[in-house]
Amino acid sequence: MATIISGKQVSEEIRDQLKAKIQSEKVDPLLTIVQVGNREDSNVYIRMKIKFAEGCGVKTDHLRLDRTIKEDELIKVIDSLNKSSNVHGIIVQLPFDSEHPIDTNKICNLVSPLKDVDGLSDLNAGKLLHGQVDGQSCFLPCTPNGCLQLIRKTGRKIEGARAVVLGRSKIVGSPMAQLLIWNHATVTILHSKSQNIPDICREADILVVAIGRAGYVKKDWVKPGAVVIDCGINAIPDATKKSGQRLVGDVEANVAEVAAFMTPVPGGVGPLTVAMLISNTVDSAIRFKNQS
Amino acid sequence: MATIISGKQVSEEIRDQLKAKIQSEKVDPLLTIVQVGNREDSNVYIRMKIKFAEGCGVKTDHLRLDRTIKEDELIKVIDSLNKSSNVHGIIVQLPFDSEHPIDTNKICNLVSPLKDVDGLSDLNAGKLLHGQVDGQSCFLPCTPNGCLQLIRKTGRKIEGARAVVLGRSKIVGSPMAQLLIWNHATVTILHSKSQNIPDICREADILVVAIGRAGYVKKDWVKPGAVVIDCGINAIPDATKKSGQRLVGDVEANVAEVAAFMTPVPGGVGPLTVAMLISNTVDSAIRFKNQS
Repeated sequence: MATIISGKQVSEEIRDQLKAKIQSEKVDPLLTIVQVGNREDSNVYIRMKIKFAEGCGVKTDHLRLDRTIKEDELIKVIDSLNKSSNVHGIIVQLPFDSEHPIDTNKICNLVSPLKDVDGLSDLNAGKLLHGQVDGQSCFLPCTPNGCLQLIRKTGRKIEGARAVVLGRSKIVGSPMAQLLIWNHATVTILHSKSQNIPDICREADILVVAIGRAGYVKKDWVKPGAVVIDCGINAIPDATKKSGQRLVGDVEANVAEVAAFMTPVPGGVGPLTVAMLISNTVDSAIRFKNQS
Repeated sequence: MATIISGKQVSEEIRDQLKAKIQSEKVDPLLTIVQVGNREDSNVYIRMKIKFAEGCGVKTDHLRLDRTIKEDELIKVIDSLNKSSNVHGIIVQLPFDSEHPIDTNKICNLVSPLKDVDGLSDLNAGKLLHGQVDGQSCFLPCTPNGCLQLIRKTGRKIEGARAVVLGRSKIVGSPMAQLLIWNHATVTILHSKSQNIPDICREADILVVAIGRAGYVKKDWVKPGAVVIDCGINAIPDATKKSGQRLVGDVEANVAEVAAFMTPVPGGVGPLTVAMLISNTVDSAIRFKNQS
Protein backbone atom coordinates (compact mmCIF):
# COMPACT_ATOMS: atom_id res chain seq x y z
CA MET A 1 0.00 0.00 0.00
CA ALA A 2 1.10 3.51 -0.84
CA THR A 3 2.45 5.86 1.77
CA ILE A 4 -0.13 8.62 2.01
CA ILE A 5 1.57 12.02 1.90
CA SER A 6 -0.17 14.28 4.37
CA GLY A 7 -0.44 17.72 2.84
CA LYS A 8 -1.77 18.94 6.15
CA GLN A 9 1.38 17.87 7.98
CA VAL A 10 3.74 19.25 5.32
CA SER A 11 1.87 22.55 5.30
CA GLU A 12 2.19 22.79 9.10
CA GLU A 13 5.95 22.33 8.80
CA ILE A 14 6.04 25.10 6.21
CA ARG A 15 3.90 27.34 8.44
CA ASP A 16 6.42 26.97 11.26
CA GLN A 17 9.33 27.69 8.90
CA LEU A 18 7.58 30.81 7.60
CA LYS A 19 6.92 32.01 11.15
CA ALA A 20 10.63 31.73 11.93
CA LYS A 21 11.57 33.40 8.64
CA ILE A 22 9.29 36.39 9.28
CA GLN A 23 10.86 36.87 12.70
CA SER A 24 14.45 36.51 11.55
CA GLU A 25 13.94 38.75 8.51
CA LYS A 26 11.96 41.31 10.55
CA VAL A 27 9.27 41.81 7.91
CA ASP A 28 5.57 42.51 8.25
CA PRO A 29 4.02 40.81 5.19
CA LEU A 30 0.56 41.86 4.01
CA LEU A 31 -1.56 39.90 1.54
CA THR A 32 -4.60 41.58 0.02
CA ILE A 33 -7.35 39.24 -1.16
CA VAL A 34 -9.72 40.81 -3.67
CA GLN A 35 -13.14 39.15 -3.86
CA VAL A 36 -15.97 40.21 -6.14
CA GLY A 37 -19.36 39.03 -4.91
CA ASN A 38 -19.98 36.30 -2.42
CA ARG A 39 -19.56 32.76 -3.81
CA GLU A 40 -19.65 30.27 -0.99
CA ASP A 41 -16.76 28.19 -2.37
CA SER A 42 -14.65 31.36 -2.60
CA ASN A 43 -15.53 32.20 0.99
CA VAL A 44 -14.29 28.77 2.09
CA TYR A 45 -11.00 29.10 0.20
CA ILE A 46 -10.44 32.63 1.48
CA ARG A 47 -11.04 31.54 5.09
CA MET A 48 -8.39 28.83 4.65
CA LYS A 49 -5.88 31.36 3.31
CA ILE A 50 -6.53 33.83 6.12
CA LYS A 51 -6.27 31.11 8.76
CA PHE A 52 -2.93 29.87 7.46
CA ALA A 53 -1.62 33.43 7.13
CA GLU A 54 -2.60 34.26 10.72
CA GLY A 55 -0.95 31.04 11.87
CA CYS A 56 2.45 32.24 10.73
CA GLY A 57 2.14 35.97 11.26
CA VAL A 58 1.21 37.22 7.79
CA LYS A 59 -1.42 39.96 7.81
CA THR A 60 -4.31 39.76 5.38
CA ASP A 61 -6.72 42.33 4.07
CA HIS A 62 -9.89 40.79 2.68
CA LEU A 63 -11.37 43.29 0.24
CA ARG A 64 -14.99 42.34 -0.40
CA LEU A 65 -16.31 44.13 -3.45
CA ASP A 66 -19.98 44.21 -4.28
CA ARG A 67 -21.13 42.08 -7.20
CA THR A 68 -22.37 45.26 -8.87
CA ILE A 69 -18.79 46.50 -9.38
CA LYS A 70 -17.81 47.28 -12.98
CA GLU A 71 -14.55 46.31 -14.66
CA ASP A 72 -13.14 49.84 -14.76
CA GLU A 73 -13.77 50.27 -11.02
CA LEU A 74 -12.07 46.94 -10.29
CA ILE A 75 -9.10 48.07 -12.40
CA LYS A 76 -8.80 51.17 -10.21
CA VAL A 77 -8.77 48.99 -7.08
CA ILE A 78 -5.96 46.83 -8.50
CA ASP A 79 -3.98 49.92 -9.57
CA SER A 80 -4.21 51.38 -6.13
CA LEU A 81 -3.07 48.11 -4.48
CA ASN A 82 -0.18 47.88 -6.95
CA LYS A 83 0.95 51.32 -5.76
CA SER A 84 0.40 50.80 -2.05
CA SER A 85 3.79 50.40 -0.40
CA ASN A 86 2.57 48.22 2.48
CA VAL A 87 0.91 45.58 0.27
CA HIS A 88 3.32 42.75 -0.63
CA GLY A 89 0.97 40.33 -2.31
CA ILE A 90 -2.32 40.69 -4.20
CA ILE A 91 -4.61 37.86 -5.20
CA VAL A 92 -7.84 38.06 -7.12
CA GLN A 93 -10.14 35.26 -5.96
CA LEU A 94 -11.60 33.49 -8.99
CA PRO A 95 -14.15 33.00 -10.40
CA PHE A 96 -15.77 36.43 -10.04
CA ASP A 97 -19.37 36.60 -8.87
CA SER A 98 -20.32 39.78 -10.71
CA GLU A 99 -23.33 41.30 -12.38
CA HIS A 100 -21.32 43.00 -15.09
CA PRO A 101 -18.86 41.35 -17.46
CA ILE A 102 -15.29 41.36 -16.11
CA ASP A 103 -12.37 40.08 -18.18
CA THR A 104 -10.62 37.68 -15.80
CA ASN A 105 -7.51 37.41 -17.94
CA LYS A 106 -7.17 41.20 -18.15
CA ILE A 107 -7.56 41.65 -14.40
CA CYS A 108 -5.05 38.89 -13.54
CA ASN A 109 -2.51 40.53 -15.84
CA LEU A 110 -2.97 43.93 -14.20
CA VAL A 111 -1.63 42.73 -10.86
CA SER A 112 1.94 44.03 -10.58
CA PRO A 113 4.49 41.28 -11.38
CA LEU A 114 6.15 42.23 -8.08
CA LYS A 115 2.98 41.36 -6.13
CA ASP A 116 1.49 38.54 -8.23
CA VAL A 117 1.85 35.93 -5.47
CA ASP A 118 -0.60 33.58 -7.23
CA GLY A 119 1.85 33.55 -10.15
CA LEU A 120 -0.94 33.48 -12.71
CA SER A 121 -0.01 36.40 -14.99
CA ASP A 122 1.24 35.85 -18.53
CA LEU A 123 4.58 37.46 -17.67
CA ASN A 124 5.08 35.11 -14.77
CA ALA A 125 4.15 32.11 -16.94
CA GLY A 126 6.66 33.19 -19.58
CA LYS A 127 9.44 33.23 -17.04
CA LEU A 128 8.52 29.66 -16.11
CA LEU A 129 8.55 28.58 -19.77
CA HIS A 130 12.00 30.17 -20.00
CA GLY A 131 13.23 28.12 -17.05
CA GLN A 132 13.33 30.79 -14.34
CA VAL A 133 12.16 28.43 -11.61
CA ASP A 134 14.54 29.45 -8.81
CA GLY A 135 11.72 31.31 -7.03
CA GLN A 136 13.69 34.56 -7.25
CA SER A 137 12.94 35.78 -10.79
CA CYS A 138 9.21 35.14 -10.52
CA PHE A 139 6.55 33.69 -8.23
CA LEU A 140 6.07 29.96 -8.64
CA PRO A 141 2.34 29.26 -9.09
CA CYS A 142 0.94 27.91 -5.83
CA THR A 143 -0.70 24.59 -6.70
CA PRO A 144 2.11 23.32 -8.98
CA ASN A 145 4.75 24.46 -6.49
CA GLY A 146 2.81 22.72 -3.72
CA CYS A 147 2.79 19.50 -5.78
CA LEU A 148 6.53 19.86 -6.27
CA GLN A 149 7.07 20.15 -2.51
CA LEU A 150 5.02 16.97 -1.97
CA ILE A 151 7.00 15.10 -4.65
CA ARG A 152 10.23 16.22 -2.98
CA LYS A 153 8.95 14.92 0.37
CA THR A 154 8.89 11.38 -1.07
CA GLY A 155 12.67 11.51 -1.50
CA ARG A 156 12.30 10.24 -5.08
CA LYS A 157 14.68 11.69 -7.63
CA ILE A 158 12.94 14.05 -10.06
CA GLU A 159 15.90 14.50 -12.42
CA GLY A 160 15.65 11.98 -15.24
CA ALA A 161 12.33 10.53 -13.97
CA ARG A 162 9.41 10.14 -16.36
CA ALA A 163 6.63 12.44 -15.29
CA VAL A 164 3.15 12.61 -16.75
CA VAL A 165 0.92 15.63 -16.15
CA LEU A 166 -2.74 14.98 -16.84
CA GLY A 167 -4.29 18.36 -17.67
CA ARG A 168 -3.02 21.55 -19.35
CA SER A 169 -4.83 24.25 -17.39
CA LYS A 170 -3.36 27.67 -16.82
CA ILE A 171 -3.52 27.26 -13.04
CA VAL A 172 -2.22 23.71 -12.61
CA GLY A 173 -1.30 21.49 -15.58
CA SER A 174 0.69 23.87 -17.78
CA PRO A 175 2.84 25.44 -15.05
CA MET A 176 3.25 22.03 -13.33
CA ALA A 177 4.78 20.61 -16.51
CA GLN A 178 7.24 23.51 -16.61
CA LEU A 179 8.28 23.05 -12.97
CA LEU A 180 8.96 19.37 -13.65
CA ILE A 181 10.82 20.03 -16.92
CA TRP A 182 13.10 22.57 -15.27
CA ASN A 183 13.66 20.21 -12.36
CA HIS A 184 14.95 17.91 -15.13
CA ALA A 185 12.18 15.32 -15.37
CA THR A 186 11.14 13.98 -18.78
CA VAL A 187 7.59 15.27 -18.99
CA THR A 188 4.57 14.23 -21.07
CA ILE A 189 1.48 16.44 -21.02
CA LEU A 190 -1.89 14.72 -21.49
CA HIS A 191 -5.21 16.49 -22.07
CA SER A 192 -8.74 16.00 -23.35
CA LYS A 193 -7.57 15.42 -26.94
CA SER A 194 -4.94 12.82 -26.02
CA GLN A 195 -5.20 9.19 -27.12
CA ASN A 196 -4.23 6.09 -25.10
CA ILE A 197 -4.27 8.01 -21.84
CA PRO A 198 -4.12 4.87 -19.62
CA ASP A 199 -1.03 3.53 -21.45
CA ILE A 200 0.80 6.82 -21.18
CA CYS A 201 -0.10 7.25 -17.50
CA ARG A 202 1.45 3.81 -16.92
CA GLU A 203 4.81 5.12 -18.17
CA ALA A 204 4.99 7.63 -15.32
CA ASP A 205 7.30 7.44 -12.32
CA ILE A 206 5.59 10.65 -11.21
CA LEU A 207 1.93 11.17 -12.15
CA VAL A 208 0.29 14.53 -11.47
CA VAL A 209 -3.45 14.58 -12.12
CA ALA A 210 -5.34 17.85 -12.59
CA ILE A 211 -8.24 17.13 -14.88
CA GLY A 212 -11.23 17.87 -12.65
CA ARG A 213 -13.08 14.55 -13.04
CA ALA A 214 -13.92 12.44 -9.98
CA GLY A 215 -12.08 9.12 -9.90
CA TYR A 216 -10.83 9.47 -13.49
CA VAL A 217 -7.51 7.66 -13.00
CA LYS A 218 -7.91 3.92 -12.38
CA LYS A 219 -5.69 1.49 -10.53
CA ASP A 220 -4.47 -0.28 -13.69
CA TRP A 221 -3.34 3.05 -15.23
CA VAL A 222 -0.62 3.46 -12.63
CA LYS A 223 2.86 1.97 -12.70
CA PRO A 224 3.55 -0.02 -9.52
CA GLY A 225 5.75 2.09 -7.28
CA ALA A 226 4.82 5.43 -8.85
CA VAL A 227 4.33 8.74 -7.03
CA VAL A 228 0.74 9.93 -7.60
CA ILE A 229 -0.25 13.54 -6.91
CA ASP A 230 -3.97 14.24 -7.07
CA CYS A 231 -4.94 17.90 -7.60
CA GLY A 232 -8.62 17.14 -8.13
CA ILE A 233 -11.29 18.29 -5.74
CA ASN A 234 -14.73 17.13 -6.81
CA ALA A 235 -17.97 17.04 -4.82
CA ILE A 236 -19.91 13.82 -5.34
CA PRO A 237 -23.29 12.79 -3.83
CA ASP A 238 -23.04 10.86 -0.56
CA ALA A 239 -26.27 10.12 1.32
CA THR A 240 -24.34 9.15 4.46
CA LYS A 241 -23.11 12.74 4.89
CA LYS A 242 -25.12 15.48 6.49
CA SER A 243 -24.33 17.76 3.53
CA GLY A 244 -25.40 15.02 1.10
CA GLN A 245 -22.01 15.07 -0.57
CA ARG A 246 -18.30 14.45 -0.07
CA LEU A 247 -15.08 15.56 -1.73
CA VAL A 248 -13.01 13.18 -3.84
CA GLY A 249 -10.00 13.58 -6.11
CA ASP A 250 -9.37 12.77 -9.76
CA VAL A 251 -7.74 9.48 -8.79
CA GLU A 252 -9.62 6.38 -7.58
CA ALA A 253 -8.87 5.49 -3.97
CA ASN A 254 -7.65 1.97 -4.81
CA VAL A 255 -4.72 3.41 -6.78
CA ALA A 256 -3.11 3.40 -3.33
CA GLU A 257 -2.78 -0.39 -3.76
CA VAL A 258 -0.18 0.06 -6.54
CA ALA A 259 1.37 3.51 -6.02
CA ALA A 260 4.34 3.94 -3.67
CA PHE A 261 3.23 7.42 -2.60
CA MET A 262 -0.12 9.14 -3.01
CA THR A 263 -1.77 12.34 -1.86
CA PRO A 264 -5.20 12.20 -0.20
CA VAL A 265 -8.20 14.37 -1.11
CA PRO A 266 -8.94 16.42 0.89
CA GLY A 267 -5.78 17.12 2.89
CA GLY A 268 -3.21 16.60 0.12
CA VAL A 269 -2.48 19.27 -2.46
CA GLY A 270 -5.03 21.79 -1.09
CA PRO A 271 -3.15 22.74 2.09
CA LEU A 272 0.07 23.08 0.09
CA THR A 273 -1.57 25.52 -2.34
CA VAL A 274 -2.39 27.76 0.60
CA ALA A 275 1.08 27.33 2.14
CA MET A 276 2.81 28.27 -1.13
CA LEU A 277 0.66 31.38 -1.48
CA ILE A 278 1.67 32.61 1.95
CA SER A 279 5.28 31.60 1.32
CA ASN A 280 5.27 33.74 -1.85
CA THR A 281 3.87 36.64 0.17
CA VAL A 282 6.65 36.34 2.76
CA ASP A 283 9.30 36.19 0.02
CA SER A 284 7.76 39.24 -1.60
CA ALA A 285 7.89 41.21 1.65
CA ILE A 286 11.57 40.26 2.06
CA ARG A 287 12.35 41.35 -1.51
CA PHE A 288 10.57 44.69 -1.00
CA LYS A 289 12.53 45.23 2.21
CA ASN A 290 15.86 44.41 0.56
CA GLN A 291 15.17 46.72 -2.36
CA SER A 292 14.04 49.68 -0.30
CA MET B 1 12.12 6.58 -48.42
CA ALA B 2 10.80 9.69 -46.70
CA THR B 3 9.31 12.55 -48.65
CA ILE B 4 11.73 15.43 -48.15
CA ILE B 5 9.81 18.57 -47.20
CA SER B 6 11.39 21.49 -49.00
CA GLY B 7 11.45 24.45 -46.66
CA LYS B 8 12.68 26.53 -49.54
CA GLN B 9 9.58 25.78 -51.60
CA VAL B 10 7.16 26.29 -48.70
CA SER B 11 8.84 29.59 -47.84
CA GLU B 12 8.46 30.76 -51.45
CA GLU B 13 4.76 30.01 -51.31
CA ILE B 14 4.52 32.03 -48.10
CA ARG B 15 6.51 34.87 -49.67
CA ASP B 16 3.99 35.08 -52.51
CA GLN B 17 1.05 35.00 -50.08
CA LEU B 18 2.62 37.78 -48.01
CA LYS B 19 3.18 39.87 -51.13
CA ALA B 20 -0.51 39.58 -51.99
CA LYS B 21 -1.52 40.31 -48.39
CA ILE B 22 0.56 43.49 -48.24
CA GLN B 23 -1.07 44.71 -51.43
CA SER B 24 -4.62 43.87 -50.45
CA GLU B 25 -4.24 45.29 -46.95
CA LYS B 26 -2.42 48.37 -48.25
CA VAL B 27 0.25 48.39 -45.56
CA ASP B 28 3.90 49.39 -45.68
CA PRO B 29 5.58 47.07 -43.13
CA LEU B 30 8.97 47.98 -41.70
CA LEU B 31 11.22 45.59 -39.78
CA THR B 32 14.17 47.01 -37.86
CA ILE B 33 17.06 44.63 -37.29
CA VAL B 34 19.35 45.66 -34.45
CA GLN B 35 22.86 44.21 -34.66
CA VAL B 36 25.65 44.84 -32.17
CA GLY B 37 29.09 44.22 -33.63
CA ASN B 38 29.86 42.25 -36.72
CA ARG B 39 29.67 38.46 -36.28
CA GLU B 40 29.91 36.76 -39.63
CA ASP B 41 27.14 34.23 -38.84
CA SER B 42 24.85 37.11 -37.82
CA ASN B 43 25.65 38.88 -41.08
CA VAL B 44 24.61 35.77 -43.03
CA TYR B 45 21.31 35.42 -41.15
CA ILE B 46 20.53 39.12 -41.50
CA ARG B 47 21.16 39.01 -45.25
CA MET B 48 18.69 36.12 -45.54
CA LYS B 49 16.07 38.07 -43.62
CA ILE B 50 16.53 41.21 -45.71
CA LYS B 51 16.42 39.22 -48.95
CA PHE B 52 13.16 37.49 -48.04
CA ALA B 53 11.63 40.77 -46.84
CA GLU B 54 12.54 42.54 -50.09
CA GLY B 55 11.07 39.61 -52.03
CA CYS B 56 7.63 40.28 -50.66
CA GLY B 57 7.71 44.05 -50.19
CA VAL B 58 8.60 44.42 -46.53
CA LYS B 59 11.05 47.23 -45.83
CA THR B 60 13.96 46.61 -43.51
CA ASP B 61 16.20 48.90 -41.57
CA HIS B 62 19.48 47.25 -40.59
CA LEU B 63 20.82 49.13 -37.60
CA ARG B 64 24.48 48.26 -37.18
CA LEU B 65 25.73 49.33 -33.78
CA ASP B 66 29.39 49.40 -32.93
CA ARG B 67 30.71 46.68 -30.63
CA THR B 68 31.75 49.42 -28.19
CA ILE B 69 28.10 50.27 -27.41
CA LYS B 70 27.11 50.06 -23.76
CA GLU B 71 23.92 48.50 -22.39
CA ASP B 72 22.30 51.80 -21.42
CA GLU B 73 22.87 53.18 -24.93
CA LEU B 74 21.37 50.05 -26.48
CA ILE B 75 18.36 50.44 -24.18
CA LYS B 76 17.85 53.97 -25.53
CA VAL B 77 17.93 52.64 -29.09
CA ILE B 78 15.27 50.03 -28.31
CA ASP B 79 13.12 52.62 -26.49
CA SER B 80 13.23 54.91 -29.46
CA LEU B 81 12.28 52.10 -31.88
CA ASN B 82 9.43 51.08 -29.58
CA LYS B 83 8.07 54.63 -29.85
CA SER B 84 8.63 55.10 -33.58
CA SER B 85 5.24 54.91 -35.32
CA ASN B 86 6.59 53.62 -38.63
CA VAL B 87 8.42 50.62 -37.14
CA HIS B 88 6.19 47.50 -37.01
CA GLY B 89 8.71 44.88 -35.97
CA ILE B 90 11.98 44.95 -34.02
CA ILE B 91 14.45 42.11 -33.75
CA VAL B 92 17.67 42.01 -31.82
CA GLN B 93 20.12 39.75 -33.63
CA LEU B 94 21.73 37.38 -31.12
CA PRO B 95 24.31 36.70 -29.87
CA PHE B 96 25.73 40.18 -29.34
CA ASP B 97 29.30 40.88 -30.41
CA SER B 98 30.03 43.53 -27.82
CA GLU B 99 32.97 44.77 -25.80
CA HIS B 100 30.88 45.60 -22.77
CA PRO B 101 28.55 43.24 -20.90
CA ILE B 102 24.98 43.40 -22.22
CA ASP B 103 22.16 41.45 -20.56
CA THR B 104 20.53 39.62 -23.49
CA ASN B 105 17.47 38.65 -21.51
CA LYS B 106 16.89 42.22 -20.36
CA ILE B 107 17.23 43.64 -23.88
CA CYS B 108 14.88 41.02 -25.42
CA ASN B 109 12.27 41.88 -22.80
CA LEU B 110 12.51 45.61 -23.52
CA VAL B 111 11.22 45.22 -27.07
CA SER B 112 7.57 46.32 -27.05
CA PRO B 113 5.20 43.30 -27.00
CA LEU B 114 3.46 44.97 -29.97
CA LYS B 115 6.67 44.80 -32.04
CA ASP B 116 8.33 41.65 -30.70
CA VAL B 117 8.13 39.80 -34.03
CA ASP B 118 10.72 37.23 -32.90
CA GLY B 119 8.29 36.32 -30.09
CA LEU B 120 11.11 35.77 -27.62
CA SER B 121 10.03 37.95 -24.69
CA ASP B 122 8.85 36.47 -21.41
CA LEU B 123 5.40 38.03 -21.86
CA ASN B 124 5.01 36.45 -25.27
CA ALA B 125 6.14 33.07 -23.93
CA GLY B 126 3.60 33.29 -21.11
CA LYS B 127 0.78 33.80 -23.58
CA LEU B 128 1.93 30.64 -25.37
CA LEU B 129 1.99 28.68 -22.11
CA HIS B 130 -1.54 29.95 -21.51
CA GLY B 131 -2.67 28.63 -24.88
CA GLN B 132 -2.97 31.89 -26.83
CA VAL B 133 -1.67 30.39 -30.07
CA ASP B 134 -4.11 31.94 -32.54
CA GLY B 135 -1.42 34.35 -33.77
CA GLN B 136 -3.60 37.31 -32.75
CA SER B 137 -2.89 37.64 -29.03
CA CYS B 138 0.86 37.31 -29.42
CA PHE B 139 3.59 36.66 -31.97
CA LEU B 140 4.31 32.97 -32.51
CA PRO B 141 8.08 32.42 -32.22
CA CYS B 142 9.53 32.03 -35.71
CA THR B 143 11.37 28.70 -35.70
CA PRO B 144 8.65 26.74 -33.83
CA ASN B 145 5.94 28.29 -35.97
CA GLY B 146 7.96 27.42 -39.08
CA CYS B 147 8.18 23.80 -37.90
CA LEU B 148 4.42 23.79 -37.36
CA GLN B 149 3.84 24.99 -40.94
CA LEU B 150 6.07 22.18 -42.24
CA ILE B 151 4.24 19.58 -40.13
CA ARG B 152 0.92 20.87 -41.50
CA LYS B 153 2.27 20.54 -45.06
CA THR B 154 2.55 16.77 -44.55
CA GLY B 155 -1.22 16.55 -44.11
CA ARG B 156 -0.74 14.44 -40.98
CA LYS B 157 -3.19 15.08 -38.16
CA ILE B 158 -1.58 16.84 -35.20
CA GLU B 159 -4.55 16.49 -32.83
CA GLY B 160 -4.12 13.35 -30.74
CA ALA B 161 -0.74 12.50 -32.30
CA ARG B 162 2.21 11.69 -30.06
CA ALA B 163 4.85 14.35 -30.49
CA VAL B 164 8.32 14.35 -29.00
CA VAL B 165 10.36 17.54 -28.80
CA LEU B 166 14.05 16.96 -28.28
CA GLY B 167 15.40 20.11 -26.62
CA ARG B 168 13.98 22.68 -24.20
CA SER B 169 15.61 25.90 -25.40
CA LYS B 170 13.92 29.26 -25.10
CA ILE B 171 14.07 29.83 -28.86
CA VAL B 172 12.99 26.44 -30.19
CA GLY B 173 12.23 23.49 -27.90
CA SER B 174 10.12 25.12 -25.17
CA PRO B 175 7.84 27.19 -27.43
CA MET B 176 7.63 24.30 -29.95
CA ALA B 177 6.22 22.04 -27.25
CA GLN B 178 3.58 24.66 -26.44
CA LEU B 179 2.53 25.07 -30.08
CA LEU B 180 2.10 21.30 -30.36
CA ILE B 181 0.22 21.02 -27.04
CA TRP B 182 -2.24 23.74 -28.03
CA ASN B 183 -2.67 22.16 -31.44
CA HIS B 184 -3.78 19.17 -29.34
CA ALA B 185 -0.86 16.77 -29.73
CA THR B 186 0.28 14.69 -26.76
CA VAL B 187 3.75 16.08 -26.20
CA THR B 188 6.83 14.73 -24.44
CA ILE B 189 9.80 17.05 -23.89
CA LEU B 190 13.26 15.49 -23.85
CA HIS B 191 16.48 17.24 -22.82
CA SER B 192 20.04 16.66 -21.69
CA LYS B 193 18.94 15.12 -18.36
CA SER B 194 16.44 12.69 -19.92
CA GLN B 195 16.94 8.92 -19.78
CA ASN B 196 16.13 6.38 -22.53
CA ILE B 197 16.04 9.06 -25.20
CA PRO B 198 16.06 6.58 -28.14
CA ASP B 199 13.08 4.63 -26.73
CA ILE B 200 11.04 7.78 -26.18
CA CYS B 201 11.89 9.16 -29.63
CA ARG B 202 10.56 5.90 -31.07
CA GLU B 203 7.13 6.65 -29.56
CA ALA B 204 6.78 9.79 -31.68
CA ASP B 205 4.46 10.23 -34.64
CA ILE B 206 5.97 13.70 -34.88
CA LEU B 207 9.59 14.19 -33.81
CA VAL B 208 11.03 17.70 -33.62
CA VAL B 209 14.76 17.81 -32.94
CA ALA B 210 16.44 20.97 -31.66
CA ILE B 211 19.39 19.88 -29.60
CA GLY B 212 22.31 21.32 -31.57
CA ARG B 213 24.37 18.13 -31.99
CA ALA B 214 25.31 16.91 -35.47
CA GLY B 215 23.66 13.61 -36.41
CA TYR B 216 22.44 12.98 -32.87
CA VAL B 217 19.23 11.15 -33.81
CA LYS B 218 19.86 7.72 -35.35
CA LYS B 219 17.76 5.70 -37.78
CA ASP B 220 16.69 3.13 -35.17
CA TRP B 221 15.37 5.89 -32.86
CA VAL B 222 12.62 6.77 -35.29
CA LYS B 223 9.22 5.09 -35.63
CA PRO B 224 8.62 3.94 -39.20
CA GLY B 225 6.29 6.42 -40.87
CA ALA B 226 7.03 9.31 -38.49
CA VAL B 227 7.31 12.99 -39.40
CA VAL B 228 10.83 14.21 -38.53
CA ILE B 229 11.59 17.93 -38.27
CA ASP B 230 15.27 18.78 -37.92
CA CYS B 231 16.01 22.24 -36.47
CA GLY B 232 19.74 21.59 -36.12
CA ILE B 233 22.31 23.46 -38.14
CA ASN B 234 25.82 22.28 -37.35
CA ALA B 235 29.06 22.88 -39.27
CA ILE B 236 31.20 19.73 -39.56
CA PRO B 237 34.61 19.30 -41.24
CA ASP B 238 34.46 18.24 -44.91
CA ALA B 239 37.69 18.20 -46.88
CA THR B 240 35.81 17.92 -50.18
CA LYS B 241 34.36 21.42 -49.70
CA LYS B 242 36.20 24.60 -50.53
CA SER B 243 35.28 26.04 -47.14
CA GLY B 244 36.53 22.86 -45.46
CA GLN B 245 33.15 22.29 -43.85
CA ARG B 246 29.49 21.59 -44.51
CA LEU B 247 26.23 22.06 -42.66
CA VAL B 248 24.32 19.11 -41.23
CA GLY B 249 21.30 18.75 -38.98
CA ASP B 250 20.75 17.02 -35.64
CA VAL B 251 19.31 13.98 -37.42
CA GLU B 252 21.37 11.40 -39.37
CA ALA B 253 20.65 11.40 -43.09
CA ASN B 254 19.66 7.72 -43.17
CA VAL B 255 16.66 8.45 -40.92
CA ALA B 256 15.01 9.19 -44.30
CA GLU B 257 14.93 5.41 -44.82
CA VAL B 258 12.34 5.00 -42.05
CA ALA B 259 10.57 8.37 -41.69
CA ALA B 260 7.57 9.20 -43.88
CA PHE B 261 8.46 12.90 -44.02
CA MET B 262 11.70 14.64 -43.18
CA THR B 263 13.14 18.14 -43.47
CA PRO B 264 16.57 18.64 -45.08
CA VAL B 265 19.44 20.68 -43.63
CA PRO B 266 20.03 23.22 -45.04
CA GLY B 267 16.82 24.19 -46.81
CA GLY B 268 14.31 22.84 -44.29
CA VAL B 269 13.44 24.73 -41.12
CA GLY B 270 15.83 27.66 -41.80
CA PRO B 271 13.86 29.28 -44.64
CA LEU B 272 10.65 28.91 -42.65
CA THR B 273 12.15 30.74 -39.67
CA VAL B 274 12.81 33.70 -41.94
CA ALA B 275 9.37 33.47 -43.56
CA MET B 276 7.59 33.44 -40.17
CA LEU B 277 9.57 36.48 -39.04
CA ILE B 278 8.45 38.47 -42.04
CA SER B 279 4.92 37.11 -41.73
CA ASN B 280 4.82 38.38 -38.13
CA THR B 281 6.03 41.79 -39.34
CA VAL B 282 3.25 41.97 -41.93
CA ASP B 283 0.63 40.97 -39.35
CA SER B 284 1.99 43.60 -37.00
CA ALA B 285 1.72 46.32 -39.65
CA ILE B 286 -1.89 45.27 -40.31
CA ARG B 287 -2.71 45.39 -36.59
CA PHE B 288 -1.15 48.83 -36.22
CA LYS B 289 -3.16 50.05 -39.21
CA ASN B 290 -6.41 48.63 -37.86
CA GLN B 291 -5.84 50.16 -34.43
CA SER B 292 -4.92 53.60 -35.66
